[in-house]
Amino acid sequence: MEPDDYFKGCPRCLDDGYPASLKILFDYKNSWDIDQKARGMFRYIDRLPYRSFPTLGEGGTPVIHLEGLADELGIPELWLKNEGQNPTGSHKDRMSPLIVARAASLKRTTVVAASSGNAGASLAAYAAAGGLQCKIVTTPKIGRIWEKAIRTSGAEIIKVSNSKERWEVIRNQVENEGAYPATNYSSPPVGSNLFGVQGYVTVAFEIVEQMKANLPTAIIIPCTRGDLLWGIWEGFIEAKRMGWINSIPRLYAVEPFPRLSQVLQGSDYREEFKGDSSQMPSIGGNTVTYQAMHAINSSGGGAVSIPNIEVEQAQKDLAKRGLFLEGSAAVTWPAASKLIKSGEINKNDKVLLMLTSHGYKGV
Amino acid sequence: MEPDDYFKGCPRCLDDGYPASLKILFDYKNSWDIDQKARGMFRYIDRLPYRSFPTLGEGGTPVIHLEGLADELGIPELWLKNEGQNPTGSHKDRMSPLIVARAASLKRTTVVAASSGNAGASLAAYAAAGGLQCKIVTTPKIGRIWEKAIRTSGAEIIKVSNSKERWEVIRNQVENEGAYPATNYSSPPVGSNLFGVQGYVTVAFEIVEQMKANLPTAIIIPCTRGDLLWGIWEGFIEAKRMGWINSIPRLYAVEPFPRLSQVLQGSDYREEFKGDSSQMPSIGGNTVTYQAMHAINSSGGGAVSIPNIEVEQAQKDLAKRGLFLEGSAAVTWPAASKLIKSGEINKNDKVLLMLTSHGYKGV
Repeated sequence: MEPDDYFKGCPRCLDDGYPASLKILFDYKNSWDIDQKARGMFRYIDRLPYRSFPTLGEGGTPVIHLEGLADELGIPELWLKNEGQNPTGSHKDRMSPLIVARAASLKRTTVVAASSGNAGASLAAYAAAGGLQCKIVTTPKIGRIWEKAIRTSGAEIIKVSNSKERWEVIRNQVENEGAYPATNYSSPPVGSNLFGVQGYVTVAFEIVEQMKANLPTAIIIPCTRGDLLWGIWEGFIEAKRMGWINSIPRLYAVEPFPRLSQVLQGSDYREEFKGDSSQMPSIGGNTVTYQAMHAINSSGGGAVSIPNIEVEQAQKDLAKRGLFLEGSAAVTWPAASKLIKSGEINKNDKVLLMLTSHGYKGV
Repeated sequence: MEPDDYFKGCPRCLDDGYPASLKILFDYKNSWDIDQKARGMFRYIDRLPYRSFPTLGEGGTPVIHLEGLADELGIPELWLKNEGQNPTGSHKDRMSPLIVARAASLKRTTVVAASSGNAGASLAAYAAAGGLQCKIVTTPKIGRIWEKAIRTSGAEIIKVSNSKERWEVIRNQVENEGAYPATNYSSPPVGSNLFGVQGYVTVAFEIVEQMKANLPTAIIIPCTRGDLLWGIWEGFIEAKRMGWINSIPRLYAVEPFPRLSQVLQGSDYREEFKGDSSQMPSIGGNTVTYQAMHAINSSGGGAVSIPNIEVEQAQKDLAKRGLFLEGSAAVTWPAASKLIKSGEINKNDKVLLMLTSHGYKGV
């Protein structure tokens, strides 16, 4: 049976007033194999919702170590996974090809996304590679280079006055124009496209393959509505089920102001949260999702906020060790420091920072 | 015996009035092994001049296929190797770590480079990773984002009024300040640092591993003084010596105006050539090198020039199939078309485009 897409998330949760996304249950036997000869996401093709998708060489990003960083934190090991080495320079490239494959399988000719940059540039590239039309709904604040990348790829840019208005446009495109949505348009949100998020399980599989016996015990992930966080969590759950690992790393969200942090302390996850994220547009937004909260709680992790004022220094600290990153990615570094100070991460932890995007985007 | 660096190239060639770089002869036995468990350049560590260097996850870039491109050219196969997926977004990341390793082994504390962007951003990053100081000599035309990347990495930027003046500054830094040079400062030029260029042999080894029996017969490479071209050629020579391949692909240089094209038709390679390269700063410059000419001739390849006016369309053509590239990389695409029209590449050729850099740099 062909699964539905559930753009508004789980219908029962919605009826109950608690919007949430859905988990895809795969109809495979108890185990599947890594394709040892394949590169990137294709190594895990047996565990992805589509066996074929337009590829630009996504995934297979390195895990590296930068001299001096671990010492500065006073921990034995600090590792960095650089998603900036994906084709359009961010982790979104693991999501977009599956969304395009899904849209094509449903005979949709147009994909749409609400994006302030990375998701839009990525979807535009993969839609182009897959021969679909693409519309990116954004605000006037979008960075000049992202806008150029999206337009050069042949996608249409629709600018609206604010972030939330984007969702109205997406809803209209989906409900009245037959477009296929890559990103959330519900409020309270349920997160990005279900099939797309499955691409993020490959991050966890790669970490398991790359780090083997030296698996991190804590992973710090830049986060808005937690698509990446949720996908990584699902990947580790699967890796444990497959017997590749014994325990799941604690997952920590880093955010520009307390959103998940407040939810973890008891606020309703369906609320809107106020704060400034101007230096971190890729993790801006006022809302969180059920599944982000669930992934954090289930892994025993947490959330930490890093304000705008610390972004520039974070970029410098990492660039001076070799990696020039987007602010939204660089804040994983002060987040590690803060989590060590608070005792949530301790000196026996092996920490991995998810560097979601490179710095060559003018942000 | 520790080898010399020969910044001005082969002393005898220089005395004879024909400046040229030198080939490094390795003192290994007849064969060496690929490290099958390693990633990127470390797979070929036995064939690199240093076994240890600061790494940011360079190399291991994908070879991909974009739907429709080969059909449009009327050839059976067209492949693209995307060096934009290196840590700082260009092929230069294969050169910089070896330069930093060499400088460190000589106890130099500062590396210097003349650069209009990619080489500078890359060297700044690897110098930072290796704990060395870095000075980048450039002109006021350098792109804003490259400048930000270089400065954020802690490197010093020295701006001079034109491209050639940069070499004077480098010479002074090397001869009077003890700095270690990453790039050429001789006129006529001998090319970039000898140890750095060795990093480019890994491109050839990767192509052999990735494409196996389906090896390209023609490779198109963006080119100024031909460091990349020369390194790739050396890599294929070595791959043939090792018995991995039977013949060497023909190597074609693409340039913004006829330089190598003129040399191949009889002009003296030591001349200065005039032309506009404003839309392709990464392959600008008025000179060529002996070894670029030699690599082209020896492989049976050629050179083709693509003018500024075709750059924007080239970027669009590739972005509309999925890859948003720097103009200097995108011109490999009209170059392929032009070489097919001229008959230099024919309908039986398997063609590979070297995409040297991604487009997120505002160029």
